[in-house]
Amino acid sequence: MLLRVVVVSFVFLSLLNNGNAGITSTFIRSEWPSTDIPIDNEAFSIPKAHNAPQQVHITQADYDGRAVIISWVTPDAPGSNKVQYGTAEKRYEFTAEGTVSNYTFYQYKSGYIHHCLVDGLEYDTKYYYKLGSGDSAREFWFETPPKIDPDAPYKFGIIGDLGQTYNSLSTLEHYIQSGGQTVLFLGDLSYADRYQYNDVGLRWDSWGRFVERSTSYQPWIWSAGNHEIDYMPYMGEVTPFKNFLQRYATPHLACKSSSPLWYAIRRASAHIIVLSSYSPFVKYTPQWEWLREELQKVDREKTPWLIVLMHVPIYNSNDAHYMEGESMRVVFESWFVQYKVDVIFAGHVHAYERSYRISNIHYNITSGDRYPVPDKSAPVYITVGDGGNQEGLAGRFLDPQPDYSAFREASYGHSTLEIKNRTHAFYHWNRNDDGKKSATDAFVLRNQYWSSNQRRRKLKKHYLKSVVGGTTI
Amino acid sequence: MLLRVVVVSFVFLSLLNNGNAGITSTFIRSEWPSTDIPIDNEAFSIPKAHNAPQQVHITQADYDGRAVIISWVTPDAPGSNKVQYGTAEKRYEFTAEGTVSNYTFYQYKSGYIHHCLVDGLEYDTKYYYKLGSGDSAREFWFETPPKIDPDAPYKFGIIGDLGQTYNSLSTLEHYIQSGGQTVLFLGDLSYADRYQYNDVGLRWDSWGRFVERSTSYQPWIWSAGNHEIDYMPYMGEVTPFKNFLQRYATPHLACKSSSPLWYAIRRASAHIIVLSSYSPFVKYTPQWEWLREELQKVDREKTPWLIVLMHVPIYNSNDAHYMEGESMRVVFESWFVQYKVDVIFAGHVHAYERSYRISNIHYNITSGDRYPVPDKSAPVYITVGDGGNQEGLAGRFLDPQPDYSAFREASYGHSTLEIKNRTHAFYHWNRNDDGKKSATDAFVLRNQYWSSNQRRRKLKKHYLKSVVGGTTI
Repeated sequence: MLLRVVVVSFVFLSLLNNGNAGITSTFIRSEWPSTDIPIDNEAFSIPKAHNAPQQVHITQADYDGRAVIISWVTPDAPGSNKVQYGTAEKRYEFTAEGTVSNYTFYQYKSGYIHHCLVDGLEYDTKYYYKLGSGDSAREFWFETPPKIDPDAPYKFGIIGDLGQTYNSLSTLEHYIQSGGQTVLFLGDLSYADRYQYNDVGLRWDSWGRFVERSTSYQPWIWSAGNHEIDYMPYMGEVTPFKNFLQRYATPHLACKSSSPLWYAIRRASAHIIVLSSYSPFVKYTPQWEWLREELQKVDREKTPWLIVLMHVPIYNSNDAHYMEGESMRVVFESWFVQYKVDVIFAGHVHAYERSYRISNIHYNITSGDRYPVPDKSAPVYITVGDGGNQEGLAGRFLDPQPDYSAFREASYGHSTLEIKNRTHAFYHWNRNDDGKKSATDAFVLRNQYWSSNQRRRKLKKHYLKSVVGGTTI
Repeated sequence: MLLRVVVVSFVFLSLLNNGNAGITSTFIRSEWPSTDIPIDNEAFSIPKAHNAPQQVHITQADYDGRAVIISWVTPDAPGSNKVQYGTAEKRYEFTAEGTVSNYTFYQYKSGYIHHCLVDGLEYDTKYYYKLGSGDSAREFWFETPPKIDPDAPYKFGIIGDLGQTYNSLSTLEHYIQSGGQTVLFLGDLSYADRYQYNDVGLRWDSWGRFVERSTSYQPWIWSAGNHEIDYMPYMGEVTPFKNFLQRYATPHLACKSSSPLWYAIRRASAHIIVLSSYSPFVKYTPQWEWLREELQKVDREKTPWLIVLMHVPIYNSNDAHYMEGESMRVVFESWFVQYKVDVIFAGHVHAYERSYRISNIHYNITSGDRYPVPDKSAPVYITVGDGGNQEGLAGRFLDPQPDYSAFREASYGHSTLEIKNRTHAFYHWNRNDDGKKSATDAFVLRNQYWSSNQRRRKLKKHYLKSVVGGTTI
């Protein structure tokens, strides 16, 4: 119960300071150190029954949303490898069988990690599922998305750089309250690499239990950040992404990607492309070859919303990680403009920032525009690296605010993108400081494909009669 | 013998056209298609004895040059895994035992690939070695470099994008005539990925036999190019660098690199850093972390010459692969300037180009220099991607020649860097068109560390009394 009290106190303190963003974030950082929740806290509680499944999480398993991968860990023995599931509570008509594996990281030995494909699901349906058996059995549910359709409404949550602090918990609980149906996760999960030796593996485990309150009930779409690299030569651990790849599955084979680190899914009315900031991406690399083909597959008539996720932001005016996205920008930005990507979400910087529609694709070393310029075909770039983690907030922004930056603030939070139909989506950045789902940056996002004048005329019936306040982009 | 005649004809034709570089290269491309030498040509001849070692190649195996890795392939059976070696011809005092492995690529099954570490060698010594036994035995020799010393003279060859055409053969034979002691290879070895299915593996084999005339007698220091990626999803082969990594060893463990694709060696008076253009290199990746530490280890008092190899050039004014080096430039260029790298060699572009000492490190998206500016601390960038391969020459340069470009020409060739002492080195680009080792671009390279006024005064005794003609850089 201690935990609850702590969170409430945090919210109260924050409410006192919501007048000025700068002061608020400074205040929080000094008064409320961004330390990890102690490992024995109930936020990481281990199911009591012997060898009960823990760290349960699901993700989309196919291209179009009719399959999930259900993953979990059994700590002491392999246990059952089966998922029982069905459309009625407590009545599990079907069974699927998965794989089990374990691994070491330094001297840490992981539990038994299960990944089970559950496919052939109906769209727009609630499924109940059960893991384990007897006393140790645990039950959950999830909802499949609507069939791929240009006007299918859907609400995505967007979370990055989450970690396992009290701020992380606040973000997670606020997200759960938001009614989001699927999380687009922007990399940097557990921050376990801030620990040493066997604690690294243990903090990956604790994080799996920490987020289970959401990940077991809805898909999280994973992208990998620098804290997933886990390059630790002093421990003899140099295989990049070892912990992450063992624990978090992605549907990369369904979209013909050769790596779980970059892939794409379609869900409701969205085509979502996940890129890997820390894998090779220059011309001729597998990620570059794959992305070139995947972009050609995007059909805005079927999935009007083209969304890209990556860890390192392409545009960022924070002092932290400034210009780290340049390497990827010079390779991919012209494609993002050519294909009229609607929005690109990134994490990495522990603050919130949104750009105008701008591009910087004309510079060619000896001529061309020097700085980013307004570009109607460009995506909106949004950094949501403020999930909350032990590294704290990134409070120093470039002064003055560059022309490309539309909104920025160093406060913890998450975002939601609520797609209404093929032309409009509601976007909100929800700041934790306000103690509840409070939209601090909110606007209506107009679809980049369907908002052309010609297409718009054809689609008058799709027009929204009313929109929420805020900018329309 | 047909081969010889062909090469002589080629040389004759070329000599007729050495007046104008532009015309020469155009002429060669149309009159002398850059096709691979037929697989049954004697350039790829297989040793006659059953299961005799083939594709013999050596590389430096440690940090300082007292060890080599000797590699070879036995086609039909594992055969002997031993290397016999010694300092007198036909008298092999010592024996080392290596490893053997094989692999598949699509349905191609490789021969038995041997890698044998031979260490504890004396500096500056000729070693003879023998592979196999009985009728199938083959004998070679190599020379170890001088002990690490700031004034140790040494002659490196620089070859890139070699392939297995008649032009490749010409480059190779010209290089052998040059008296170079070790090859710095800039990536793109066999161009086997221009073939399909089982021919890919077979063309890796033929290339190994093709270059054996040099690689079995002196170390080649390998870097990997895009033609080593071998990403071929249509064949089910998607593991990057699979053929290359099986066949070509590098001493990455000796310099604490976690990958054979990036590493460093010290040899005579040079510290050579090999980077991987197609591996992750942005901040926080293993290559970035490793390079940061390796640059701190460079001791210009011991190894005055700091040389970096990579496949994709940072500066290139050829239409081919224009700006492909930008991703790596924005990450590493400031380090190259900070550490006063002497020269950076790259391949990739099938032409020759040399830059002035320039840098482009002040641009920061909203301010800073727009274009590269003269910078005395910057490296000279040299592109030697003109080894000769079936893709032909890259004859279209940006017009006008940008300020940063000092010399450029689309002709086949190789370079040599002849280090004389801590302050001076002779550099030559040797154009094949001239039919013999003909220095078309030549200059004296002044060491970036020892050429400072203060250090120069201390070192008057090291000054060269006479230097060859050409620019001094």
